[in-house]
Amino acid sequence: MSMKAPRGTVDILPKDAKKWQYVESKIKDICNRYNFEEIRTPLFEHTEVFSRGVGDSTDIVQKEMYTFEDRGGRSLTLRPEGTASVSRAFVENKLYGEANQPVKLYYFAQMFRYERPQKGRMRQLNQFGVEVLGSDDPAVDAEVIDLAITVYKELGLKSLKLVINSLGDKESRTNHRNALIEHFAPHKEELCADCQVRLNQNPLRVLDCKKDREHPAMKTAPSILEYLNEESRNYFEQVKNYLTKMGIDFVVDPNLVRGLDYYNHTAFEIMSDADGFGAITTLAGGGRYNGLIEELGGPNTPGIGFGMGLERLLMALDAEKISVPTDEKLDCYFVAVGDDAITEAVSLIHDLRVNGIQVDKDYQNRKMKGQFKSADRYQAKYVLILGENELENRVVNLKSMETGEQIEVPIDNLTEMVKEKLQEGKNNE
Amino acid sequence: MSMKAPRGTVDILPKDAKKWQYVESKIKDICNRYNFEEIRTPLFEHTEVFSRGVGDSTDIVQKEMYTFEDRGGRSLTLRPEGTASVSRAFVENKLYGEANQPVKLYYFAQMFRYERPQKGRMRQLNQFGVEVLGSDDPAVDAEVIDLAITVYKELGLKSLKLVINSLGDKESRTNHRNALIEHFAPHKEELCADCQVRLNQNPLRVLDCKKDREHPAMKTAPSILEYLNEESRNYFEQVKNYLTKMGIDFVVDPNLVRGLDYYNHTAFEIMSDADGFGAITTLAGGGRYNGLIEELGGPNTPGIGFGMGLERLLMALDAEKISVPTDEKLDCYFVAVGDDAITEAVSLIHDLRVNGIQVDKDYQNRKMKGQFKSADRYQAKYVLILGENELENRVVNLKSMETGEQIEVPIDNLTEMVKEKLQEGKNNE
Repeated sequence: MSMKAPRGTVDILPKDAKKWQYVESKIKDICNRYNFEEIRTPLFEHTEVFSRGVGDSTDIVQKEMYTFEDRGGRSLTLRPEGTASVSRAFVENKLYGEANQPVKLYYFAQMFRYERPQKGRMRQLNQFGVEVLGSDDPAVDAEVIDLAITVYKELGLKSLKLVINSLGDKESRTNHRNALIEHFAPHKEELCADCQVRLNQNPLRVLDCKKDREHPAMKTAPSILEYLNEESRNYFEQVKNYLTKMGIDFVVDPNLVRGLDYYNHTAFEIMSDADGFGAITTLAGGGRYNGLIEELGGPNTPGIGFGMGLERLLMALDAEKISVPTDEKLDCYFVAVGDDAITEAVSLIHDLRVNGIQVDKDYQNRKMKGQFKSADRYQAKYVLILGENELENRVVNLKSMETGEQIEVPIDNLTEMVKEKLQEGKNNE
Repeated sequence: MSMKAPRGTVDILPKDAKKWQYVESKIKDICNRYNFEEIRTPLFEHTEVFSRGVGDSTDIVQKEMYTFEDRGGRSLTLRPEGTASVSRAFVENKLYGEANQPVKLYYFAQMFRYERPQKGRMRQLNQFGVEVLGSDDPAVDAEVIDLAITVYKELGLKSLKLVINSLGDKESRTNHRNALIEHFAPHKEELCADCQVRLNQNPLRVLDCKKDREHPAMKTAPSILEYLNEESRNYFEQVKNYLTKMGIDFVVDPNLVRGLDYYNHTAFEIMSDADGFGAITTLAGGGRYNGLIEELGGPNTPGIGFGMGLERLLMALDAEKISVPTDEKLDCYFVAVGDDAITEAVSLIHDLRVNGIQVDKDYQNRKMKGQFKSADRYQAKYVLILGENELENRVVNLKSMETGEQIEVPIDNLTEMVKEKLQEGKNNE
């Protein structure tokens, strides 16, 4: 039993890996156009990075982290999300001192959350995310949201829903927080045990509770939007204005609060409303976190980012029946018969490969017929045939599997001729 | 203090990430030519996968693993090397039943070893590796070695040394093992404590000991090559013959034994002998492991693979002063002045980006001069200028930063014109 992958983890096998490669390379290309650069942080951090950076009162930190001691007795935690790690790296490497500000970063990273595994919710999951550190320009908020939407659109998704909200600045949040406590206080005993704690720690998260969703006091709870001060309201107006100018549709939902403690101003989620996508529809979520860098020991630095689940992205593509283009055809398969021909083939294959040509051969001691079958299974465009006669005449038979046309090519011209044929094929596509 | 990356781990910052991206994409291209496909396994496995798959008596399993219990009490271990994980995935996913055999896999993966951190030896390290499962054709051994060498050569490394050996089949190993025990028995008390244990468990590894390296009995120890039976000898001859035909230089070293328990037949290492590379010169190591799949509960299946340290690969490039080509220049920088122009710019930038153009703008509320400075720092090829006058006339000034030439472009033609100019630039390169 223990020879299986751990519960909540999966292997990505070659067929699926091709889809991942396509999606990742598309996303990298988009990041490059938006002038974001890649950062890679370690798989684990000192536990404190997450307890301070994500927030002690969050479900992630309280229930879901893979925390362990290393052999030196340090408490380490496998990364449960990306923002805290990237922010720690920003502070430690003093990226706030770089000439180019803001620092616009993206990452691809595995995340680890000890949750009950279910469709779309794994213990090891893959995220793409971005973080922009060093600017509180509302145009950055719009840029970050635009980037996320562009990723989905360029991959072909149509059933998208962007929800945004503002959590305001500190003053607005404090006023709203007090209003929430006052509002829920008479109903405290009727709320779930978690919410009774949340009401004092972080009353905003009561609005997020799944158990108390139907409580009448939820419907009448004061909205953050009523408590935004002028600056926060202006900020939010500008973000919405930029999105509108870019032609990006959105819905404002004052109950969108995000589970993490350090968010302020803009918060957003992108969902799929495709048929048959299932209950978990959030594809990406993010927001602004102007206090985090200071919390982690850096200078006061505004930040905004999002995390995008890649497993869910692939599920959304499936739900919309979008097939990712992957190249399944092999350029060449080399059929060689006889010990001397095989030895020669090994050397010729080496030459072809170092000259940029994709080629494979049989390694199962198959007879000629079996080798041709193998070429078919690989959907080879060309088969190169070398038997004893050909070897004696220093030629290789080059057969197009598409047209059936077969020509004899001198061994010394093989690489050149195969290159030419493959190029012709590409031009005709 | 805990706000630093854990000891023995590092952040890969954007400047270096570009090098990593280049190296990885080169390697992926080579794997594609050799018809290897990617596999991704989870970051951790049930500990038993490594204790059985790597070998209980190895240093890795005994001293260097990050092992911890998850919240359900399972013993998990962060992957210390790639072969055991890939083999577990091969068995669990029944890849031995695939029509295309052998299964040719490659991976990029972080590995975790609790060692004393030093140059070229980190606790979290990055490896590229391949595994070919399902063929015992010596041409596969040559193919795998060829692939590794091709990676280094195509990246420009010149100071390479390939060392190979044969550990023979089971019969040959047993005979050699007995000879080793007999040879060292009279000197047992003189060997280090570890070797006294190794002598019974796995005497081959005594030859690998750094402490006992100078003991006179080491020099006269029986060589595995003298104990190869005919089949093993033939196998090794064929591997060497294929390498020679491919023009790959190698040295045979009968003391190359590899630290892992499950190797047989071909073993190899690739080292750098570049000046100034330092003491740790092994870049990649691998070999054949025909018993492993069965050990992990699968059918009897031959296998061969290697692991290549990517940090060391980058160190070797540095040691040979090879600089990796990375594109540092930004296509366009948008200079906008005035609130209305900025709003228009945000929308135009969105259009340019979704049309494939790399463009950025200021998010620091800089004046025009500061924005131009920013464009210079990003090495922008073109600057697009939109002020109040331009906005009124519905034009953008497009300035080539290389020639200084400046033209006025109607806003509605902007994307088209920028595309054209960038294409011209590419054609002139």
